[in-house]
Amino acid sequence: MTALLMEWDKACRSSHALRFVDVNLRGVGQVMFQNNPLTGALFLAAVAWGSFAAGAPHIFFGGLLALVVSSLAAMWLRVPQEKLNAGLCGYNGVLVGLALATFLAPGPLLWVYVVLGAVVSVIVMLGVSNAVKDWGLTALTFPFVLTTWLLLLATYGFAGLKGVALPTGNMVAAFEPFAVDPLNIIDLGRGVVLSLSQVFLKASGVSALLFLIGLAVSSLPTALFALGGAVLAVLTAHVLGAESDLITGGLLGFSPVLTAILLGTVAYSPSLRVATYAAIGVVFTVIAQAALNVALTPFAIPALTAPFVIVSWLFLLPRQCLESRQGEPGVVASSDDASHHTA
Amino acid sequence: MTALLMEWDKACRSSHALRFVDVNLRGVGQVMFQNNPLTGALFLAAVAWGSFAAGAPHIFFGGLLALVVSSLAAMWLRVPQEKLNAGLCGYNGVLVGLALATFLAPGPLLWVYVVLGAVVSVIVMLGVSNAVKDWGLTALTFPFVLTTWLLLLATYGFAGLKGVALPTGNMVAAFEPFAVDPLNIIDLGRGVVLSLSQVFLKASGVSALLFLIGLAVSSLPTALFALGGAVLAVLTAHVLGAESDLITGGLLGFSPVLTAILLGTVAYSPSLRVATYAAIGVVFTVIAQAALNVALTPFAIPALTAPFVIVSWLFLLPRQCLESRQGEPGVVASSDDASHHTA
Amino acid sequence: MTALLMEWDKACRSSHALRFVDVNLRGVGQVMFQNNPLTGALFLAAVAWGSFAAGAPHIFFGGLLALVVSSLAAMWLRVPQEKLNAGLCGYNGVLVGLALATFLAPGPLLWVYVVLGAVVSVIVMLGVSNAVKDWGLTALTFPFVLTTWLLLLATYGFAGLKGVALPTGNMVAAFEPFAVDPLNIIDLGRGVVLSLSQVFLKASGVSALLFLIGLAVSSLPTALFALGGAVLAVLTAHVLGAESDLITGGLLGFSPVLTAILLGTVAYSPSLRVATYAAIGVVFTVIAQAALNVALTPFAIPALTAPFVIVSWLFLLPRQCLESRQGEPGVVASSDDASHHTA
Repeated sequence: MTALLMEWDKACRSSHALRFVDVNLRGVGQVMFQNNPLTGALFLAAVAWGSFAAGAPHIFFGGLLALVVSSLAAMWLRVPQEKLNAGLCGYNGVLVGLALATFLAPGPLLWVYVVLGAVVSVIVMLGVSNAVKDWGLTALTFPFVLTTWLLLLATYGFAGLKGVALPTGNMVAAFEPFAVDPLNIIDLGRGVVLSLSQVFLKASGVSALLFLIGLAVSSLPTALFALGGAVLAVLTAHVLGAESDLITGGLLGFSPVLTAILLGTVAYSPSLRVATYAAIGVVFTVIAQAALNVALTPFAIPALTAPFVIVSWLFLLPRQCLESRQGEPGVVASSDDASHHTA
Repeated sequence: MTALLMEWDKACRSSHALRFVDVNLRGVGQVMFQNNPLTGALFLAAVAWGSFAAGAPHIFFGGLLALVVSSLAAMWLRVPQEKLNAGLCGYNGVLVGLALATFLAPGPLLWVYVVLGAVVSVIVMLGVSNAVKDWGLTALTFPFVLTTWLLLLATYGFAGLKGVALPTGNMVAAFEPFAVDPLNIIDLGRGVVLSLSQVFLKASGVSALLFLIGLAVSSLPTALFALGGAVLAVLTAHVLGAESDLITGGLLGFSPVLTAILLGTVAYSPSLRVATYAAIGVVFTVIAQAALNVALTPFAIPALTAPFVIVSWLFLLPRQCLESRQGEPGVVASSDDASHHTA
Repeated sequence: MTALLMEWDKACRSSHALRFVDVNLRGVGQVMFQNNPLTGALFLAAVAWGSFAAGAPHIFFGGLLALVVSSLAAMWLRVPQEKLNAGLCGYNGVLVGLALATFLAPGPLLWVYVVLGAVVSVIVMLGVSNAVKDWGLTALTFPFVLTTWLLLLATYGFAGLKGVALPTGNMVAAFEPFAVDPLNIIDLGRGVVLSLSQVFLKASGVSALLFLIGLAVSSLPTALFALGGAVLAVLTAHVLGAESDLITGGLLGFSPVLTAILLGTVAYSPSLRVATYAAIGVVFTVIAQAALNVALTPFAIPALTAPFVIVSWLFLLPRQCLESRQGEPGVVASSDDASHHTA
């Protein structure tokens, strides 16, 4: 695998076109913190499969367009080369594109929206990175969340853009307990699998498998933490009595998966303490996901990966308490560096 | 013009009373980033015209009272002289006064509210300035927005203060497309004009003209960027299918006007790249305005200039990407300095 | 009193078990900024009285469990000894436990929730402390507020946890003035007393007295500022026409009490200017309390001490304007130090 990647890297160094492809693939990989073009390619294949199998190829093309536009925008903005090359200007864009194409009806203005969202996501990424740098944090997927929330909220004021899969605005009400069905082991297993694919807003077992393989080619422990995070999240949601459809659809598990990868393998040096800390983070991300689902009910927008961002930032800030990856105690690496650990 | 201003400045140096008038006029000018007493006087005239013509002189007096109180509060708080003299302690106060008198019914408690809001707006301005300084940002109109939001929200819990022009609390619902009327060029022109006057919560063509003149006497490019921002905002809102009344009333354009001035003429050295960047900011401010209108629907309060503040902060943070005004690459000037560029 | 405390301190130094008790008592005292085990013991007695008298002893045990768990979690997280010993890892936990047991029905999952909330409150405390340190701020009770909000919001998505005293989700609507009853001096006095006990979510006169005594044994001026803050808050709410039940129940006064103590006695050196500044802060905390009550209406969760946190942070940030406690002008002491002023 390493030989293949070195070959590819050599080819990229001699061709601007290949380098551009490389940058975009790494951008897709960075959605799960992997600075690895092969991982990105497998992730992209997973997204393509999920979109085409669901009869919605335009979602895949929305993600692809946003990915390319955000890389181009980053070049126009003269982002430092090493940041660009690590794929750090693409991971928010591709998610913005996928989310807009998932939640809004196709049409000319959707594509305008996708292009605008991709450009803004890069600006927000650069801005948020600057703002949280001194706290030892990185932007995570907050630029994706913020940009998409504003764009989706605005559609309720625009006749040109129609929601198709947006939640309905409603008042917060006590949970109806009869909606809880007894789940068997197969339902829970389905929830675990779809928790992995929902990181890219997909509900497909094949996609989930491709995501896991993509993680494994980059780092086997990461794949295990992702899977472990999904299992723990589904069990937590089940024990607390969450709605069955949310559990089996993976909708309470995709944010915890990201928390598990970040806290367990990216930010800190692996140890039993770190694994325990990550587990607490995963459980609390399930709580935060349920909380944000409720808090966003009056606004009729989805929580996206906001629960992951909030809990991860909170759990990364007390950096004196756990051993960080970079030797220097307590300093969480900037994601450029952190993501190199698999190279 | 310069000779006149120098004469005025000499007079101010010999009289405490004139200096106090000067400080307050500059405070009004700083609402659009102009540290210029003549600009402030023209803005104040515009506000007076708008209030009296609409049969609501108490709105003008609310703004005036809050302006004076916030200057006095700043002196009591021993704010550094250069900050005070640049009018940076008045621009939030005058907006708080205008907004409270616009949205609440007249009465004794309104004036208590105006005084309290003015004092708090200075404290919040000092606090927010300190907090965002290290990010190379200034407080912008965030102190006005935060103070006014809290004061307006609280009125729903107080029998002593009645809303008269507050939006009705409602659930977020899909936009009714039949509310979109075909707009002609005159309607759009009206929207452009009122976008300028709505910066001070006024809907008056004469006021808009006075605002433009006020900007022009301080800096012609600023007046052009304000106008250009209004045109771009109205066109964007129209293309996206926003509600006609919001467009023609200037209610989707006043925040973008501020974004255009700030990004295009205050923060960065003018260039084609900067103008493009500012244009993206203006378009996204329209999105943010529509988004906040929706997001605030359940709370029954207006967005004020929050969309401008959010988008401007996001677009100022990636300061390494564009050339700032102050030679030192990437450092956005503190607003004391930045506003001196017209002196 | 000092002799007694020195005796106790000597005993603690020779016994790990006593030290652990000491740390937990100081944690309770730190809810009102008192690093004093006797104060903590009196506060704990007040909470016990309030819970047992109201026929809800499980609330007291919820607070106690969370207190102990958060101290243990802090030790597992290897929090610096001086931070732990000052009780700074317990004050959020005890409030989380009290709030969860107050607002949720008893049951096995409640206790899971209390333990999880206590652990997370320590992590959030460490994180927020790091984040706001450079602004000269401390975490205050924000970790309690954030953790409890997320846990309470999530219950609307979980069948396993039932709200018993949560507000009902509703739309924001104009205040019904006929709900305002003329209050007499006895009603207002009741409001003052309960404002003190509601800091710990209790509505009991005996508890209020124990809280006042607990403050007085640590610092007489603090007790006076707490009482003065409660009086000013109740009068402000009454003049503005707040709902009678909220006033007499102390529900608009507990956040202002904390603001009064912090601004008046902890952060700045006492003076007439500081007292005036604290008074403005108290009045604005009443506004913020009413505002947050409204803003949280659509989410069906209580404001907790968020109004205190928001207003205090805003009023502490302009640190150049008032004389801080620590000699060095403008630097608000970290709460470890600040709370030592009574030792």
